[in-house]
Amino acid sequence: MSIENEPAAEQVRQAPSEDAHFIVGIIASAGDHDGPALRRALANLDPADIADVIEHVPLETARVIAKMVGRYLPPEFLANLSWERREEILPELPADYIGRALGQLDTDDAASVAADIDEKQLGRVLAAADEDTRLAVEEALSFEEETAGRLMQREYVAAPEGDTVGDVIDRMRADAELPDEFFEIYVVDALMRPVGAVRVSSLIRASRDTPLADIMRAPLILIRTGMDQEEVAQTFQKYHMASAPVVDEAGRIKGMVTVDDIVDIITEESEEDLLKLAGVSEAAQTDSVFKSVRARAPWLLVNLGTAIIASWVISNFEGSINQLIALAVLMPIVASMGGNAGTQTLAVAVRAIASRDLTESNAPRYVVREAMTAMSNGAIFAAVLGIVVSFWFPQTPLLALAIALAILINFACAGLAGILVPLTLRRFGADPAVSSSVFVTFVTDVVGFMAFLGLATLILLS
Amino acid sequence: MSIENEPAAEQVRQAPSEDAHFIVGIIASAGDHDGPALRRALANLDPADIADVIEHVPLETARVIAKMVGRYLPPEFLANLSWERREEILPELPADYIGRALGQLDTDDAASVAADIDEKQLGRVLAAADEDTRLAVEEALSFEEETAGRLMQREYVAAPEGDTVGDVIDRMRADAELPDEFFEIYVVDALMRPVGAVRVSSLIRASRDTPLADIMRAPLILIRTGMDQEEVAQTFQKYHMASAPVVDEAGRIKGMVTVDDIVDIITEESEEDLLKLAGVSEAAQTDSVFKSVRARAPWLLVNLGTAIIASWVISNFEGSINQLIALAVLMPIVASMGGNAGTQTLAVAVRAIASRDLTESNAPRYVVREAMTAMSNGAIFAAVLGIVVSFWFPQTPLLALAIALAILINFACAGLAGILVPLTLRRFGADPAVSSSVFVTFVTDVVGFMAFLGLATLILLS
Repeated sequence: MSIENEPAAEQVRQAPSEDAHFIVGIIASAGDHDGPALRRALANLDPADIADVIEHVPLETARVIAKMVGRYLPPEFLANLSWERREEILPELPADYIGRALGQLDTDDAASVAADIDEKQLGRVLAAADEDTRLAVEEALSFEEETAGRLMQREYVAAPEGDTVGDVIDRMRADAELPDEFFEIYVVDALMRPVGAVRVSSLIRASRDTPLADIMRAPLILIRTGMDQEEVAQTFQKYHMASAPVVDEAGRIKGMVTVDDIVDIITEESEEDLLKLAGVSEAAQTDSVFKSVRARAPWLLVNLGTAIIASWVISNFEGSINQLIALAVLMPIVASMGGNAGTQTLAVAVRAIASRDLTESNAPRYVVREAMTAMSNGAIFAAVLGIVVSFWFPQTPLLALAIALAILINFACAGLAGILVPLTLRRFGADPAVSSSVFVTFVTDVVGFMAFLGLATLILLS
Repeated sequence: MSIENEPAAEQVRQAPSEDAHFIVGIIASAGDHDGPALRRALANLDPADIADVIEHVPLETARVIAKMVGRYLPPEFLANLSWERREEILPELPADYIGRALGQLDTDDAASVAADIDEKQLGRVLAAADEDTRLAVEEALSFEEETAGRLMQREYVAAPEGDTVGDVIDRMRADAELPDEFFEIYVVDALMRPVGAVRVSSLIRASRDTPLADIMRAPLILIRTGMDQEEVAQTFQKYHMASAPVVDEAGRIKGMVTVDDIVDIITEESEEDLLKLAGVSEAAQTDSVFKSVRARAPWLLVNLGTAIIASWVISNFEGSINQLIALAVLMPIVASMGGNAGTQTLAVAVRAIASRDLTESNAPRYVVREAMTAMSNGAIFAAVLGIVVSFWFPQTPLLALAIALAILINFACAGLAGILVPLTLRRFGADPAVSSSVFVTFVTDVVGFMAFLGLATLILLS
């Protein structure tokens, strides 16, 4: 490597939050209540890095940072925090700082910060904010959570149908109230309904006398204020959109959603699916032990119920187990293998439903494929396990037959339950990721124990 | 609702791929080899919708569509297909159509299409493409898969440091070779190294005589051609970037990554984590049964191995079970509850590692919190299960004590395994999502059976 390359190579820096030395320093300065040191360390970082550091330190440190130097930090760090941590440190910040901060943020960010302020403080914060900010925040909070109305920013650029490129550029140069960043301008009719969009990159390349109508594209899909954020995200993703106008019931433009917010939603929604499948209702970096326990205990309780039912199934075969102790030794294998086959199918189904690969139109084909996949694996592992068991318990050769048949039956049920349970939950409007695993492992446990112990009783002991 | 609202409400249309009637029609037309009907149905759709339809029909139909009408479809539909389906239908398309299509796509899309063409056909395709396209595709394919070099498009807008806004706008108006859409232009030094970026939305609002240096922002992070795509995605997400320049080892600009590609990567990577945690190596809508079996059998085989070891543990306590059949009835509860507690911790840990919430700097705090959470839940469920068992088996009161202690032990191990296993895998450079579940449920099965049967033997039978 030549010397010339080195400066460039050095520019790849480590994020401050991943620098253990830096984090230890912050925690120590906060412990000493050394405001100037905290300010020196944090004030010049990018807001995203400041937020990241505040996420990575213990709650006590985060509170001291907010109290001692929060007011000197750029307001964007608030927008970059997770809502959990934001909720924890907002009470430490002066109401007038937050009020001014809301005015400096885009309205979508201001709304999500405001949503985490407790009611008493919010009154003081909005009193400290300017009138425009107060109205924008109040309007934003009037939309339901997780809808396009909450997600949109009220700053956007619109132009009447009759404008030319030159008209728009001149107006934009004169207007100080534009959003920080925008990718498209929206062409609207006399009733403020969007009829087209012009990419800024097209606008800048067109000559000044080009009519907007010549370079605009018709909007593919109109996003309404009430649309669920997950649907908004899927639309953006499918059509590779950078931004889109949001309209009210009458089709009038009310705001704009941009792709950077979409990126956050996609991450959130897929993290949620992963956690829900594992029986965790929510999890954040900043959770306390108490909060984590509360997020996990309910599902463990349900699982306790289903495990007791499965045990009750076993208790009905006490006589058989008493005669042939090998049944007790082998029965967990049948349940465990079935549970895994069911979980595999379930994960594939939940993913396919979330990404809309699995729809009403191809559901029957999916069900057939999943059932056949599970049964094929069932055949393979019935054979393997049959052979293993015939060597392990040579004195009872029919035991191999019983376990092989039980595996076949349990895999078939696992495959069907793995896809039909989430499809049924969706049909009834429930989230297919939540509680699917409970149902599926309940099926595979009960079927596994019943099939193996029942068949063994029939074949060997009757 | 007033009549005025209705036209707007009707504009929310259903995606063709989710319209069962439409899909059935396509399958029928393909069955009849009715080219004109297929062309009427597909040619006017958005390329993303065409791709979606081709994903949602059986392979045979997709092949017929490609063969009969592929050449009449807009080339962008190829970029919108999943690689699995693309690989299946590319052989049905004429090489000269693909060659022309590559020239019309952005170079990043052209490269990902070209990567799915088999070697023999690729020669013919590149021969049919123009020289620029051929060179761009060959250069793109020279970078490793899943790196920034593969991801970037070679079309970008750069301007020298000394330029004014007016210089850049005039040059762009004259240049036909610009990318379709761009969000920033990059300011470069004499060696083509990026020294700043100007948002197009800032450019358009600045007066023509403004020097670029006055409105540019320094690049936060330089993305190198060799950077892993997951790292690129995390950088975009953290700093809410719309696009970024990609540089070679000497720091010279080679291309540009845009946020729409990032959205796809984030989705892919999180889907992968969800599937891997469930023991599925990969899954696509278009997979055959054979492919699905192959993607799932290996993990089932590993699970069979661990299940047999767990059974062997049980077989060591045959004597105890023979004396007290209730042990066989209750032992699956201990294993199942521990398995769930471990899976919960694992999901939280894998999510936190993927999102970089869990780093070297806060790993010890995470481990402590997860261990304490698992032990707290352990204490709760030890108590609950103890009470249940004392009512269920009143004749052996000490059984409740044995199962309560076993739950406590198994939950503690579950919590530790759930976080230490993925952390250890990451430490050794392995993917923390893959094979974590096997290890964790192996631990909870073995510990569960051993603790319960061992304690019961000690307390009740010795």
